[in-house]
Amino acid sequence: MLPESLKRLIHELTKLPGIGPRSAERLALWLLTEQRATPRELSESIAVALDEIGLCSRCGSIAIKEKLCDVCENPTRDRSKICVVQGPLDVVAIERSGTYDGLYHVLGGVLSPLEGITPDDLHIPYLIERVEAESVTEVIVATNPSAEGDVTASFIAEELRHMGAKITRLARGLPSGGQVDYADADTLEKALKNRVEL
Amino acid sequence: MLPESLKRLIHELTKLPGIGPRSAERLALWLLTEQRATPRELSESIAVALDEIGLCSRCGSIAIKEKLCDVCENPTRDRSKICVVQGPLDVVAIERSGTYDGLYHVLGGVLSPLEGITPDDLHIPYLIERVEAESVTEVIVATNPSAEGDVTASFIAEELRHMGAKITRLARGLPSGGQVDYADADTLEKALKNRVEL
Repeated sequence: MLPESLKRLIHELTKLPGIGPRSAERLALWLLTEQRATPRELSESIAVALDEIGLCSRCGSIAIKEKLCDVCENPTRDRSKICVVQGPLDVVAIERSGTYDGLYHVLGGVLSPLEGITPDDLHIPYLIERVEAESVTEVIVATNPSAEGDVTASFIAEELRHMGAKITRLARGLPSGGQVDYADADTLEKALKNRVEL
Repeated sequence: MLPESLKRLIHELTKLPGIGPRSAERLALWLLTEQRATPRELSESIAVALDEIGLCSRCGSIAIKEKLCDVCENPTRDRSKICVVQGPLDVVAIERSGTYDGLYHVLGGVLSPLEGITPDDLHIPYLIERVEAESVTEVIVATNPSAEGDVTASFIAEELRHMGAKITRLARGLPSGGQVDYADADTLEKALKNRVEL
């Protein structure tokens, strides 16, 4: 009984991550009937962003199309450090922390033989090239603290080992604001092993 | 550090129900960088639906703009029954059940003195008009089984009482597929009170 254009909108919303058919129905009707909704602005902002946003051709993070990203463009960043991350959102999170002044390399994923994701897919040969060409002295591997993230980090470390740059990995331990009694065994093990003197 | 067009998209996504700033960031980057995403189609489908979809001028449910809805247009529907619901999604759910052949009246909410929602906002005078004009014999009040839904249902029943039409309310009881041991006290009380002979 629903009009075609509404069915199509619901169908498109269903493709979004975490949105099932019922949520898509609710969202579509909310967009079309709720006074607070600004669907025209949403529709336009998607189109404008699509036209404008691309990935930095040097590091792979978010940039204006055909341009380098703000970090790569910034002459005050320390070009001797590269932080290797899985995705563009990781760059956003690390930049928000305001504690890193080097460059980035976005892998676009982690190694996964099952999903057929190889070192080439993650631009690892290009990372090696950058470390060589840009006289990098430290590569900080900031892949997720997961099994896949660890395997990818080890692989990158092996590939870069002969090049003389220091290779580091983000520290593991208790998250700030967390609770010891809620921490999993692996986190506690890492937190104990990496304990620091006060 | 994010480009303006991306910030704007994130801002627009944040307005959606249930989407916070972090989810909006994830959603925006997913739309722009994920291969499975079809952002152009999403943007267009919102615009097309906005141009085409309106509310039925007779019952208030979803319709093509300037037209009556499929239910009101359908000559085989039983015009002696009106089912009163809170929103257009309720019509979709009842139609999906395939067990109702009458007409609808969409209130667009429930009575709420705190939020300043009055009988006029819910088109209750217009409902009375319809019951009178269309020789309706039964009004089924299908507002939500909540305190506000009950108050609104009682108000509507009072307003219509003198008109001779039968006024009914959707049954309360255990939901199909539910479990007795998970049911709340109010639901069990209603289920016991309304028990039926086998």
